[in-house]
Amino acid sequence: MTPQAAPTPAYRRLSVEERRVQLLDAALALFAHRPPDEVSLDDVAEQAGVSRPLVYRYFPGGKQQLYEAALRSAADELRLCFDEPREGPLLTRLTRALDRYLAFVDGHDTGFSALLRGGSVVETSRTSAIVDGVRRAAAEHIMSHLGVTEPGPRLGMTVRMWITAVEAASLIWLDEEKQPPVEELRDWLVEQFVAVLSVTARRDAQTAELVGALVGDV
Amino acid sequence: MTPQAAPTPAYRRLSVEERRVQLLDAALALFAHRPPDEVSLDDVAEQAGVSRPLVYRYFPGGKQQLYEAALRSAADELRLCFDEPREGPLLTRLTRALDRYLAFVDGHDTGFSALLRGGSVVETSRTSAIVDGVRRAAAEHIMSHLGVTEPGPRLGMTVRMWITAVEAASLIWLDEEKQPPVEELRDWLVEQFVAVLSVTARRDAQTAELVGALVGDV
Repeated sequence: MTPQAAPTPAYRRLSVEERRVQLLDAALALFAHRPPDEVSLDDVAEQAGVSRPLVYRYFPGGKQQLYEAALRSAADELRLCFDEPREGPLLTRLTRALDRYLAFVDGHDTGFSALLRGGSVVETSRTSAIVDGVRRAAAEHIMSHLGVTEPGPRLGMTVRMWITAVEAASLIWLDEEKQPPVEELRDWLVEQFVAVLSVTARRDAQTAELVGALVGDV
Repeated sequence: MTPQAAPTPAYRRLSVEERRVQLLDAALALFAHRPPDEVSLDDVAEQAGVSRPLVYRYFPGGKQQLYEAALRSAADELRLCFDEPREGPLLTRLTRALDRYLAFVDGHDTGFSALLRGGSVVETSRTSAIVDGVRRAAAEHIMSHLGVTEPGPRLGMTVRMWITAVEAASLIWLDEEKQPPVEELRDWLVEQFVAVLSVTARRDAQTAELVGALVGDV
């Protein structure tokens, strides 16, 4: 596996913020292809083309701090996937957001599973909170596109269940050598979204109204 | 909150196996209502009406060992929920299994969420493996009732996604003061099962055949 970020020569003068971003990129490139337990600060220093003490100067908390910062940066990237202009049919917007999300999963495979699976030695309630924040952001984006400001419990639960199912699908997809093809997976997930909302619509007026709008809006 | 197992007086003579079961029951009763981090060995000794050294004699690995043993015992209980005679319509069997599962969730609320949410200080790859084992058992039971010995990737992924969605629903349900009522939640989950399988059936012959059988079998 080839790490994604090319090492930057150490002699280049970087600002503090540039250096921080460089180290986080190096860490993310490594976490993308190896579980966090198998990445050392030496690896990060080597990947970034800097000395180990320099990594410690930026992340005095060591690996745990670097991991959390890298996780936060990955979470920010994931949130960007959900940014979708409020134009065109709703299901087309969902399709585009899923395309970006699945491209992220595809590009960060091992790191993504290690992160979501938990059970790692560096898993803490803080890292869980970062992951939960991404889930919450996904749910908020969906509600906002649906034009719902106050989701009732049934609609809220349905959307959160679907988000969890998408996560599970991503992990299984990575385990199964990225089969089925990503476009099929994406369409399948969109159709499941409509299907589970339709089930909820049978017992919830708010959801029923939305499903009418979704299906009519093509 | 009242723990469920009544303390047994210490003077009763128990066999080694009886004592072990008694201590596990005491631990489970405590973990059922408090996150593992907040349960001490003293609490377990008090709950079981025995001395702390006795708890250590049975679980020399201390809290971590006791927690894992209690988790394994809860996992066994959960697996029992999936045991369903191969009689009657398939969806009726699924309904009965979900009734037992949701009764378990209802009875072990806090402990169940702490367990599934992870992020606890006693969360390890071993405890994750126990939880994954229960998920796998659930999928195997479903396949076996459906009469499927070799699930294709699309059917397999659909069933595993639904199991994850059920887990998510259970956690949300506990968070939202057990609303909607358990019977509604159960029927809703069964309907979602049929709905997601129907979506998969559009692109998978194996699943299409099953959905035909499920819907015809009432």
